[in-house]
Parts: sequence; structure tokens; C-alpha cells
Amino acid sequence: MNGGGEETGFEVAIVVPKRSERERDESSGDCVEFLVRELEKAGLIVERFRGVPAEFIKVAAPLETLGRAAADLQMKKLTYIGMELQFDWDQVAAFVRQPDGSLFSWCERFNCFRYLIYGIVNRTNTELTLKFDDKEFLYERNESLLGKMEAVGIVKQVFPLHDEVRRKQLLGNWALNWLDFTWQPIDEIYSYFGTKIATYFAFLGMYTRWLFFPAVFGLAMQIIDFGPLQLLVLPAFFVFVISWAVFFFQFWKRKNSALLARWGINYSLSEYKAIDTQMSSLTQKTDWEKKCDTNRLVEKTRLQRDEWLDLLLRFRNNAIVILAIICLQLPFELAYAHLYEITETEVLRYLLTAVYLFAINYYTRIGGKVSAILIKCENNQGEESSAASLVYKVFGLYFVQSYIGLFYHALLHRNISTLRQVLIQRLIVSQVLENLIENSIPYLKYSYKKYKAVHKKKHEKGLTPEKSVRLFTRVEKEFLKPSYTASIGDELEDGLFDDFLELALQFGMIMMFACAFPLIFCFATLNNITEIRADALKLLVMLRRPVPRAAATIGAWLNIFQFLVVMAICTNCLLLVYLYDQEGKWKIEPGLASILIMEHVLLLIKFGFSHFVPEEPAWVRAHRVRNVAQARDACSKQLLRSISTLDRKWD
Amino acid sequence: MNGGGEETGFEVAIVVPKRSERERDESSGDCVEFLVRELEKAGLIVERFRGVPAEFIKVAAPLETLGRAAADLQMKKLTYIGMELQFDWDQVAAFVRQPDGSLFSWCERFNCFRYLIYGIVNRTNTELTLKFDDKEFLYERNESLLGKMEAVGIVKQVFPLHDEVRRKQLLGNWALNWLDFTWQPIDEIYSYFGTKIATYFAFLGMYTRWLFFPAVFGLAMQIIDFGPLQLLVLPAFFVFVISWAVFFFQFWKRKNSALLARWGINYSLSEYKAIDTQMSSLTQKTDWEKKCDTNRLVEKTRLQRDEWLDLLLRFRNNAIVILAIICLQLPFELAYAHLYEITETEVLRYLLTAVYLFAINYYTRIGGKVSAILIKCENNQGEESSAASLVYKVFGLYFVQSYIGLFYHALLHRNISTLRQVLIQRLIVSQVLENLIENSIPYLKYSYKKYKAVHKKKHEKGLTPEKSVRLFTRVEKEFLKPSYTASIGDELEDGLFDDFLELALQFGMIMMFACAFPLIFCFATLNNITEIRADALKLLVMLRRPVPRAAATIGAWLNIFQFLVVMAICTNCLLLVYLYDQEGKWKIEPGLASILIMEHVLLLIKFGFSHFVPEEPAWVRAHRVRNVAQARDACSKQLLRSISTLDRKWD
Repeated sequence: MNGGGEETGFEVAIVVPKRSERERDESSGDCVEFLVRELEKAGLIVERFRGVPAEFIKVAAPLETLGRAAADLQMKKLTYIGMELQFDWDQVAAFVRQPDGSLFSWCERFNCFRYLIYGIVNRTNTELTLKFDDKEFLYERNESLLGKMEAVGIVKQVFPLHDEVRRKQLLGNWALNWLDFTWQPIDEIYSYFGTKIATYFAFLGMYTRWLFFPAVFGLAMQIIDFGPLQLLVLPAFFVFVISWAVFFFQFWKRKNSALLARWGINYSLSEYKAIDTQMSSLTQKTDWEKKCDTNRLVEKTRLQRDEWLDLLLRFRNNAIVILAIICLQLPFELAYAHLYEITETEVLRYLLTAVYLFAINYYTRIGGKVSAILIKCENNQGEESSAASLVYKVFGLYFVQSYIGLFYHALLHRNISTLRQVLIQRLIVSQVLENLIENSIPYLKYSYKKYKAVHKKKHEKGLTPEKSVRLFTRVEKEFLKPSYTASIGDELEDGLFDDFLELALQFGMIMMFACAFPLIFCFATLNNITEIRADALKLLVMLRRPVPRAAATIGAWLNIFQFLVVMAICTNCLLLVYLYDQEGKWKIEPGLASILIMEHVLLLIKFGFSHFVPEEPAWVRAHRVRNVAQARDACSKQLLRSISTLDRKWD
Repeated sequence: MNGGGEETGFEVAIVVPKRSERERDESSGDCVEFLVRELEKAGLIVERFRGVPAEFIKVAAPLETLGRAAADLQMKKLTYIGMELQFDWDQVAAFVRQPDGSLFSWCERFNCFRYLIYGIVNRTNTELTLKFDDKEFLYERNESLLGKMEAVGIVKQVFPLHDEVRRKQLLGNWALNWLDFTWQPIDEIYSYFGTKIATYFAFLGMYTRWLFFPAVFGLAMQIIDFGPLQLLVLPAFFVFVISWAVFFFQFWKRKNSALLARWGINYSLSEYKAIDTQMSSLTQKTDWEKKCDTNRLVEKTRLQRDEWLDLLLRFRNNAIVILAIICLQLPFELAYAHLYEITETEVLRYLLTAVYLFAINYYTRIGGKVSAILIKCENNQGEESSAASLVYKVFGLYFVQSYIGLFYHALLHRNISTLRQVLIQRLIVSQVLENLIENSIPYLKYSYKKYKAVHKKKHEKGLTPEKSVRLFTRVEKEFLKPSYTASIGDELEDGLFDDFLELALQFGMIMMFACAFPLIFCFATLNNITEIRADALKLLVMLRRPVPRAAATIGAWLNIFQFLVVMAICTNCLLLVYLYDQEGKWKIEPGLASILIMEHVLLLIKFGFSHFVPEEPAWVRAHRVRNVAQARDACSKQLLRSISTLDRKWD
């Protein structure tokens, strides 16, 4: 069995501690044996493999097992008539296939796996006693076997496995394909990593492609002398960049919905979130609601109350976060920027920066935790909605952390040359460093774990060091690799949070200070071309295969990008004022200034606050969604049969 | 038969010229006799009535006839599972009933009537010769009888009839119910006038209700002396008014979707337009598309090309309208405002105003016609979309016409007191005048027509003048009443255009000059309270029953209102500058001013231009909508049967 880890098809691995062979008896009470038998009974193909650091149970599933699981899960799948209906294995012809011809997407497959594995429960009428080595535990009735084994510490991990053939294929035509700067095999990425990661790379690719235009403009401004028109070039560049951003995001929305159509995800962008989140909140309440169905008015009142309470709660949480940022982080950032400006020796500056970095790191981590706690008392509907709420809150922290220093140099001290230096430094040094850290830390972790495991093995078996190189099979290597997690904690977000954050901070930097340093777009373009490959390599080589997520848009990040565009309009205007008024002669009356500030606040209210009050009352939405749900549940079977026959006719 | 026009149930009238009794022979060739027979064959209940001005054929329909017509029309109706399916008379239990318990809404009923009446075609294999008096005409095969009769001038008009019982009921508890200031029986209005008019009144009522808040604030500012805080009151009022408007429109959207839910119109606000318009454009192309279905790529390319061509065309048309306004109307308006300012004698001013009013009336009419022509070359999807396009274009004209004079006084000449005078004059005098004209012109027209008809009748029969008072039956009176048409032409819009225009101009006036004259909100409130009753009276008493329209939102007007809010932020800031800087001491550098202008233009681009590029590519939407349509067509029957049974179970 050793070395046989290269088969395709095994998609999930369960890790249990290794025992020495002599202790492994074939008595019926051994829980690992029991688990394997139960897995096989559930229709899964199981392969056990004793590796160096632990024992692995690799699990594959025939299509039919997955199909039955999907039907049990009441999974909704797109049919050929464009409606999502409950999956039914007997009417399989009615369901739209993936672009690569398979029935289930990776995300659906993983959900089925999880359902199958965690769905093994004790269906007998008695409690069973299972043992592992010398440990014994009671396996109670209707208890999930894997859940119990995780609870008592026997199952260490359950993680998705890479598919070696497709991984190598992607490595060749994506991560190591340096010839096409921004082209990526998005469909293959989708079918290997799922919607959310594919959407990230599609966005990154399109963003980089679009970046070429302002990069060329910026480069032209640096090289060409426009003579008497020089004064007009900068405002023209500013207008160009803002229009570019506006159109980019509009075209991104189009691209996103085109991608969703291609992948058979049948939601219009605007409807997507609404139905999806409502559905999940509805399923939790179905029992209660059935009783209440007779009394529509009571339900309506309840839903309305819930809606406003929820809004109030969210408003309060956001207020807390904003206050914390303004009262705690802002003074700290300004103090650092000021101290940095007035210290004279380089040594002190480095010392200061070190202290600052340490403190800010600590602060950010606390901020992330506080945000996660705050979000738990919000009544977010669905996981993706909670994740979006977290993204907004944490981005506030990073926004202040990243830009306050820049604003300090640019606006308070009118120090454009320092601003340019800091921008170059941030964009090149910090992003290169970040990429290095991003990729090297997982590798170092992995190497360390590997070294430890080898060391252990050598101790055990007394093998010669030369042989240890060939010791590791694929599944063992993957076990040692770190998983794709966010730096702020892995409860609500995965590693995409960090990748999007990097992108958003870069976008903010290049947009908000575009007029101060137009060449910055070139650096960003170069940076992003390497970023695509670096992220691809990270996902394919450095890390475990990430757990797929269902979200089909870039979600909260789109709003953040849009917000940055509005910010960019204001900051660039200020920058232009400082650039054209180098002697500081332009005066403004305090009255006029306060009216201008009021105008900006009101425009913010106009365009921002309408987001706070949802356009559709909760009860209307609940009503509509329940109707759709009823349609699905009641008529699924009949509809499916007719679609299957239709499908055959069309063929 | 005379005097029998008071029955309910007769909902449509067909008007043919009156002939003297002796000429009316019972030969088979008489086309009116033929029409009546054909109408009866179609299952309609027909009543002929010889009135004073013409002969009327009143038509009623039993529910079953309407149901069969709806099924023939392939009308989509909401079912109890929340999906719209093709109507089927046999599965009537599956469809959601109206709030008043009837199966069809007034709009659906009228569509069925129209289908039934115009659906009478010559199904024989030969051409028939029909005659009317001495005129003969050929009734060709597969030709619509009513269409032909309209073409040769025999059928003068087909119009919907008032329902006397319900009209009187509405008159009592709505139009003449002065005790409830803003409460209206919206559901009854909906079932009597259809969605669009009910939505207008719901909006007007809510707007008036919300107006109380700024009206009270404005009144308080007038009455109370805030002492040292006086300087801060005006900005506070400004912020309050803008926030008020933002929240009002957000809550209006909520109310609108709640209304739609109550009336069984199953569309989310955002999806409504998309699906609906696409559906209509799709049905026109179905044949062509079926052929093309095999070749998805070709279709995609075609749809993309069409989409961009369409956008370009619309862009060009808007550019033409905007240029025409700036180059032709703007100088004219400014010239008038300037001349008005410099003329000294009152007589000359009146003369000037008369010339101006004459010219502007002419200009507006030409503008409306040009817009209608421009819209015809646009590829608007659906009638409501064309109407929206017209509304935007014509509102541009009215906007400049109504506000440029005000801006001239307020901003160019800093003449706040003249501005206040003009505002009072416009709001009170012109709106009162407009209401009077609005209501008296139809009445005068009606009286004149009535007088003429009476005169004619007296001539014919030689009756004594005392008797003529009781001569008219309801249907004759309605025939003499004018119909509910827009002042800019009745092709795309009905009278709601004028009502909404009045509302939008009023809203713009009170919002954009709020700081100059806070008391204006009180006048607007009073105005609107009378406006509700005046419009109700107009619809119930002065005019014929309007042809119902399907649109379920206030459509283009919402965007216009939102635009006015943004304008209000900018104009009020300027007003505040002028109010606080009465000596004109505040100076602004030209550089700073140009940067500020650039900022405002960019903010406009950010928030306005994203409307130009649709979020979803046309081919994605076509794909999605076609799928839904297929679902409806293919599975309608089966689904309906199961819903009917479900329904019975739930009951």
C-alpha cells in the first residue's frame, strides 16, 4: 500500500494517529477498523495507508454514492429549464452538467463527502463501546461517529486532497505559464478550486489587464514633456483614472455574471444574495413558521421587528468599530507618523518602526477578534453574509493603518516627495516582502514539520539518512502542508481574505495618490503579474487544497473598491490643490470650508445611507422566498420527470 | 333600451355613428349588426344603445369568456407557489386571486376584452362585403373586423366604461373624504384603476405624509427665534431635509414592494424591469432564435453587438436632447430672466411674460415630439421602457424651463428676496392655477360637447328645452368626457405623466431652494393635500376611465427624484454661501474653483455613469430568461395540476 498515493479519485483524507503494528488487533472494538467498515458500508471507496507522521484513511466516492448523498442533502441543482430543483438521482438527465462534463462541481462534491463522512451515526439501539489503543469510549445512539472521534481526539483532521493529475496540469498551464501575462484557465481553476477562488483569480486577471491603460498613461506622463499643456496633463490623468475605475467595476460585474452563466450558477447578481441568505434563514425556522402560517399578520409583525432590531444591532456594532478606530488607532498612527518625521537618526527610526509594527500587529489581531465576537451577536443570514460583515469591519482597521501615514505626509505636511518615497517603498518593498513571506512561511512550516517527521521515523526504524528523501507519499506531504487560512482567524474567512486585502490596499494606494505619482500604476501592474503566479503557486504547491466555498461574487470587496474610488476623487482633489498651490497662497474662508465639508457629508449620506435600509421589507422577501421554496418542494418530482423527457427530445 | 345605461358589468363601449331609424334594415350585410352577432358568438354580453351623439355597443363578459381569452392570450398569472405560469381555465384554483376576491385584475380584464374584441377575424374562406348606410367595404380573410371598421371610420372609439357602483363608492370614501388628510383606499383604487394609477396615489399620499416633518421644522424656523444658535439652524435644516429625502425614497421603495406583494405581483423591485422587458423582446424573436439555438456563439455575438449598438443609439439621442436644451433653451430662458429683471414698467413685464409663455409652450411641444421621434429609433424593450426614455428626455426640458429663472435670481444675482417671491408665486399661484386648469379644461370641453349634442338632438326631435336636462345616460356622458392623456402626446404616456411632472417640479422647487425659504414645505404640504382630492375627482368625475397600465413602480420618476436630491445638495450649498456671505467678501481662487468643479463632475461620473453600462450582459440575461420561459411553457400544465391539488389539500 505504501507509495500508492498517486491515484486520482481519492478526494478526502481522514487522519488518525499511527499505532505500532503489533498493537493493531482485529478485534471488533477497534474504532478505526469500525470507521473504515462504516465508510465502506456508506458506499465509499476507502484506502488505508500508514504514513510516517500518522495513519491516513483516504476516501473516494463513486458517482452514485455522491448522487444519493446529494439527494439526501436535498441539494438544489440547476436544471435545464433554468430553475433550481432538488437533486434526484433517478432524474439525473434533468440537471445541468459542469463545463468539464461532470455532474457535480467540486464544492457540491465536497459537501456530499462531508455529509457522507459525518453522516455515519449509530443506528443500533444500544450504545457501542469502541476502543483505540488502550483508550475506550462510548459511541452513543444517533451520534456521529466522526464527530465523536474528533471530540475524543482520535481523528486529528479531515481535509480535501489534491488531485495530482489536474494539479500538475494546472501547474503547467497556469502557475508556471509565464508567457501569457494575464490569461488564466479560469474554467479549470473553477472546477479544481470552486467558485470563490476562481472568481478571485478572474478578478485579479481582469484588474491587471485593465491596469495596462493607466500604466501606459502614467509612463507617458513621466517620459514625455507636454510643454505648455503640462498644467493640464495631471487633471486629465485624474479624470481618466477615475473614469477608468468606474468602467472597470461596471465591466467586472458584467464579467462576473457571464462567468456565473458559464458555470451554471443561475442567479442574477442582484438577486443572488437575497434569495440565498433568506433561504438559509428560512430553513432554520420552517417548523416554527408552519405553525404560524395561519396567522400572517403575526408573522409580518415579527419579521418587521426582527429586521429593525437586526439593523440596529449592526449599526451599533459598526459604530463601536468606527469609534475604536477613531479613538484608539487614529491617534496612534498619527503619533507614529509625527515621531517618524521628527526623529533624526536612522537608528531611532528603525527602532520606532519596529515598536510600531509590533504594536500594530497586536492591535490588528485584537481588532479581528473583537470584530468576530461582534459579528456573532449580529443575526447575519448565512455564512457569506457574516464574512462580508467581518470584511467591512476589519478593512476599516487596515484602511487607517495603511493610509493615515500617507495622508499625514501628503495633506498635513504637503510633503509630496516624501509621499512618493513612501509609496514606492510600500508598493515595491512591502509587496515584494509580503509575497516572499506569504510564500516562504508556509514552506518553512512545511519543511520544519517534514524534518521533525523524518527525524522521528529515523529514530523509529533506524534507517540511513540517504533513504529518507523518498519516504514521503503525496498524502503525507499534504498533511504536513499548512492550510489556506486568513491571518485574522479562520472562523469566517479563508486565505482569500488576505489576498483580497492585499489587492484592495494596493488599489487604494494607487487610486488615492494617483496624482502625486502617476508612475505608480506601472509598479502595480508589474506587481500584479507576479502576484497571479505567486498566488497560483501558493495554492497549488505550498498549501493543502482549500475547502471550497459557494460564494459566486467578490462580495463585500466590491463595495470596498467602490468606496475607495469615491475616496480617491476627494484625496486627489486635495492633492491637486497642494500641487498647484506650492506657495500656499490659496486661502479659503472658514465658512466656505465648513459648507464644503457639509456638502461632502451630505453626498456621503445620499449615496451611502440608502444601503442601510433594505429596499424590500423582510416579510415581503420571506413571503416570496417561501413561495419559491414551496414550489420546489411540492413540484420537484413532477417537474424533473418532464424535464428529463424534454431533454431527451431536444437531444 | 333608453336609460338602461346604469347596469354594472358593462366594462367596454364601442362607439359607432348614429343612423336614422328608417335606414336601419335587417339585411345581413349591415356591419354593425354583423359586429354585434360576432361579439355575441365570442361569448360576450352585448347591449346596443342609441344615444344622442352616437350609437353605443356596450360589452360585458362572463368570467368564463374572460378566462378562455386569458388562456388564448397565454397570459402569465401568479400561482400559489409564487411562480408565474400560463393561465389555464381548467386549473383556475391554482392562481392567486385579487385582494377583492376576483380572479382577474382590471388590467388583465381589459387586456382580455381587447383581445376578444379585436380578435374577431374573418375565418371563412371568402371575402365578405359589409355595408354601413350606403358605404360598402370588403372584409378580407383573417382580417380583424374591429380594426377594419376603425380603419374605414365606422367605429369611432373603443373605451373602458366606469363601474357606477364602485365609482360612487370611491367618490365617497376617497375623493370627497376630506377628513383623512392623506389616507386613501389604495387597494380599492388598485382594483378600479389598475397598478400604475394606484402606485401614483400611494406615492402621493406617502410623500404628503412625510412632508409634514420638514413642514413643521420649516414653520418652527419661521416662528421661533433661536437666539445665538440662529446661525446653525439653517445648516441643520439643510442636513435634516436631505436626510429626510434619502430616507423617504428608501422607505418608498419598501412600501412599493409591500404593495406589489399585497397585489400579487411577484417581482422583486430590481428584477422586475429586467425580466419583464426581456420577455417582451424575446417573444418577438422566438422563431428566429429557435433556429439559432444550435449556434450559441453566433447568438451571443449578435446579442452583444445589439446591446452596444443600442447603448450607442441611446447615448446619441440623449446627447441630442442635452445639446438642444443647452444651445436653444438655456439662452432663451436666461434672456427672459434678464429682460424681466431690467424692464421697469409692469405692462412691459406682463407683455414679456405672455410672449415667453407662448414661446415656451411651443418649444415644449416641439421638444416632446422630437423626443418621441428619437425614441422610436431606439430599441427600447417594452412599452414601459420607451415611456421611461421619454420621461427622462422631456423632464430635461421642463427642468430647465422651471428652474433656470430661479437659479438666475438666486445664484447670479444673489437676490434672495426675489427668489422667495418667485417661489411663492410659482408654488401657490401656478399650482393653484394649474389645478384649476387641469380640472376645468376637461369640464369645459365636456360641457361644450354636451351642449353641441343637446343642440343637435333638439334640432332633430324638436323637443322642448326643459326636457333636455334628463337626456343623457351614463355611457353618453362618458363618451363626451375627455380621456386621460398627457399634454405631450398620447402615444407613450397617459395623464399620469402630467401629474408626476407636477409632483417632480414641486419636489425640485422645495428641495433645491429649501435653505432660501424653509416655509415652502408648508405650502407644498397644503398643496399636496388638495392635489390628492383634485386628482381623485379628476379621475372619477371629469374624465373617462383610463386604460389600465401594467407598470408596477413609479419607474423613471424615481430616478428623477433621486437626481433632484443630489442637485439639491449642491444648490443649497451655494445658497448657504450666499446667505452667509452677504457682503460678498468670500473669495475663491480660480484654481481651487476649477478643482472643485472637477471634483463634482467626477462624483457625477462615479454615481451616474455606471447606469450606462448594464450589469448583466444581454446574452446572459437572454439565456436566463429563455430558460425560465422554457420552464413555463414546458411544465405549465403539470405544475398547475399539482398546485391545484396542493391548494385543495391546504384548504
